[in-house]
Amino acid sequence: MSLDDVLGRIDADLPTAIDRLMELIRIPSISTDPAYAAECDRAADWLVADLASIGITAEKRVTPGRPMVVGHISADRPDAPHVLFYGHYDVQPVDPLNLWTSPPFEPVIEDTANGKVIRGRGSSDDKGQLMTFVEACRAWKAVHGSLPCRITFFFEGEEESGSPSLVPFLKAHADELKADIALVCDTSMVARGVPSIAAQLRGMLKDEFTIVGPRIDLHSGHYGGPGLNPLRELSRIVTSFYDQDTGRVAVEGFYEGVQEVPADQLRQWQNCGFDEQDYLTSVGYSQAHGEKAYSTLEQQWARPTLEVNGLWGGYNGAGSKTVIPSQAHCKITCRLVGDQDPDKLRIAIRKHVESRLSPDAKVIWDNDLEGSKASVMNIARPEMEAARAALSDEWGREAVFTGMGGSIPVVGFFKSILGLDSMLVGYANEDDAIHSPNEKYDVQSFHKGIRSWARILDALTAK
Amino acid sequence: MSLDDVLGRIDADLPTAIDRLMELIRIPSISTDPAYAAECDRAADWLVADLASIGITAEKRVTPGRPMVVGHISADRPDAPHVLFYGHYDVQPVDPLNLWTSPPFEPVIEDTANGKVIRGRGSSDDKGQLMTFVEACRAWKAVHGSLPCRITFFFEGEEESGSPSLVPFLKAHADELKADIALVCDTSMVARGVPSIAAQLRGMLKDEFTIVGPRIDLHSGHYGGPGLNPLRELSRIVTSFYDQDTGRVAVEGFYEGVQEVPADQLRQWQNCGFDEQDYLTSVGYSQAHGEKAYSTLEQQWARPTLEVNGLWGGYNGAGSKTVIPSQAHCKITCRLVGDQDPDKLRIAIRKHVESRLSPDAKVIWDNDLEGSKASVMNIARPEMEAARAALSDEWGREAVFTGMGGSIPVVGFFKSILGLDSMLVGYANEDDAIHSPNEKYDVQSFHKGIRSWARILDALTAK
Repeated sequence: MSLDDVLGRIDADLPTAIDRLMELIRIPSISTDPAYAAECDRAADWLVADLASIGITAEKRVTPGRPMVVGHISADRPDAPHVLFYGHYDVQPVDPLNLWTSPPFEPVIEDTANGKVIRGRGSSDDKGQLMTFVEACRAWKAVHGSLPCRITFFFEGEEESGSPSLVPFLKAHADELKADIALVCDTSMVARGVPSIAAQLRGMLKDEFTIVGPRIDLHSGHYGGPGLNPLRELSRIVTSFYDQDTGRVAVEGFYEGVQEVPADQLRQWQNCGFDEQDYLTSVGYSQAHGEKAYSTLEQQWARPTLEVNGLWGGYNGAGSKTVIPSQAHCKITCRLVGDQDPDKLRIAIRKHVESRLSPDAKVIWDNDLEGSKASVMNIARPEMEAARAALSDEWGREAVFTGMGGSIPVVGFFKSILGLDSMLVGYANEDDAIHSPNEKYDVQSFHKGIRSWARILDALTAK
Repeated sequence: MSLDDVLGRIDADLPTAIDRLMELIRIPSISTDPAYAAECDRAADWLVADLASIGITAEKRVTPGRPMVVGHISADRPDAPHVLFYGHYDVQPVDPLNLWTSPPFEPVIEDTANGKVIRGRGSSDDKGQLMTFVEACRAWKAVHGSLPCRITFFFEGEEESGSPSLVPFLKAHADELKADIALVCDTSMVARGVPSIAAQLRGMLKDEFTIVGPRIDLHSGHYGGPGLNPLRELSRIVTSFYDQDTGRVAVEGFYEGVQEVPADQLRQWQNCGFDEQDYLTSVGYSQAHGEKAYSTLEQQWARPTLEVNGLWGGYNGAGSKTVIPSQAHCKITCRLVGDQDPDKLRIAIRKHVESRLSPDAKVIWDNDLEGSKASVMNIARPEMEAARAALSDEWGREAVFTGMGGSIPVVGFFKSILGLDSMLVGYANEDDAIHSPNEKYDVQSFHKGIRSWARILDALTAK
């Protein structure tokens, strides 16, 4: 029996694999809303049963939040590599519901200009991606009777709601979850048809603060002039975060630990298929607006940011209100790269704000916010090159090591708690509308994704 | 029958007068929010009925917005003076509701360090003040059987929402509303117990704009760096409104038409009883934050401002959302002095914003907002000196001509449309928290305010 037999089996089984995925999508496992807790349970049960149907020993594991699913299967030989596969079965909320063209939890197959797609919440993020690996294992097992790697399956149910149970669970089950390498399927391809391994992820720092000016809201007739306005104060402080000429963040020490992208990596990125024009114009930009000294792709993948995600204060209803508000509020997140330390940066940002306050202005910080460092994958590992070759074979185009602007905190925790390097391979497209109405997953992503994993399993165990 | 009989009647009737005021406060006549349109109607009806109960011919008059109330009563003799009395029955919104110590529309009498107060939205601005005059008329009529002046009552229901119907109504009913002088009760005393006639008012310019960045809300992982953030853009533009060193407004042409206060007027103001320390510390300030070259009182009464009354965009719920929002919103008002022209200033401000936009940022203006010039009263009129003497008698302290930081656009329209000078007498205290949570009106303000109007009516008709 050969890899070709497995691939043939995958091709033949595609319709039933799609049916299984659609069954999973029909379970509305929204993790952030407690009203859907029972549905998350149901999704976990479905996965346990599906893994069991392949011969994998799987269990639902209770947490203070949504359950985890853990499964184990041994390999056909004792010296085979041991991989940990990670995905998440929970999905984002579906609002605004009125923008969906079909009900989010009643998946349908649709024809589009780019071929057939499976439409429904979670079809791409992350149920469809997760099932690519499960289906590859099913086909391999059906053809060979056993799997070529020892595999631990680890499915989370809180990825879309901040993963509150993840770290305690990893710590409590570190021995059970250890492996040689983690495979994570929750990322996109850099461009349609370009197989991609994400080699670096940005980290994340969140903070929130309130500027307090007068003790109470004031009338702008009585106090306009002498009165300190916290909205003006907040605007000035937000503006001071940035160097207007260079586009750099002006917080002292912000770039500590940030490295330049090596020239050969930059060259690879320049040829990775990233469509800068489409990236910008599809959202209404004619140019990139970040640090002027860096390319658009570097700004997105390799440079840190300090972003204002919310800002509010005063009156925002209809008409006008002549108020000098007492408070102004600001939510920020930083995307981190290289060795930037979120804890040190939080101190630096707070110091920046506090040192710029006017007399009579105070700042109150929200203390309940976490940070995570950036992750750089160890692409020198032989598994990386093996996977890259396997992906290139499947997609007929050289696979690329890309960066990623987003953050996948689990990768950092696999490293810090389990000592595991991760390999991030995903088949989503940028137009999948994850987190938005009308989420979809290309049938091509699903089909070739399953085939890709079969090839990767084969490559990882090639003698 | 004498003035003393009227004052005695006022003292005896105080409890029932307070009951009537509380009835009016219970009607949540918020004019800026269309949801309360019916309540505004109800407040107008209440006033019509209350005037009728005194023997005044009164009607509710429909407008495209909230109704006006107009009432007429003749004097005891044909050659008596004719006054137009103005007040407004509409009130400000009540948010933030959670800061109120009692429900805003369930008025209560409370003991405070400064004596009893009536707490509730509109208790001071302007229902309590408006009713001081109505109650004075009621007592006078009860004692004398008629009034000493011919009086036209004119109550507006849109003062807190920009008075969109005011000018058309004044123009359409100019003949009906003409009188010898307008009495306006919507101002404060310069200090507790210091009777005050406002001799100058600041004007007002309102505007609102939205900065649009990307076409849709963006994910800060995917677009953080290259993405233009309208919140950052708005912060930068708001900051550019001001010269940080001098505290001056940095919009080109902003100070055109602004005059310095004459030295003798400044001297009067310095001795008018204004308690700068209390004015600042009562709201949590240790210093004035306006133009550094001017005193606190000048900043409040004689200098123009550009104030941000509301600013919002992005996510403001619990937790965090990694979003680069598509839009950021800003509401501003300017207080105008001297000959500043609101129409020219609007153009200057819009030009200031538009010339500072980054590429890919757009601005959308709200076009439905009006302006009014500053007003200076004619204090040479004999009624002014008569009222000053009457107020001095009631309060046992010489009444003063003050400036005012607020804007009462109706005063300008009375002059330009009806040819009427106005006299502004009010009994509010600076700590009344008008437009804020826990608005109150001192029972002393209400009681001595009623008595003051009786004395003024007497003084205006003295032979």
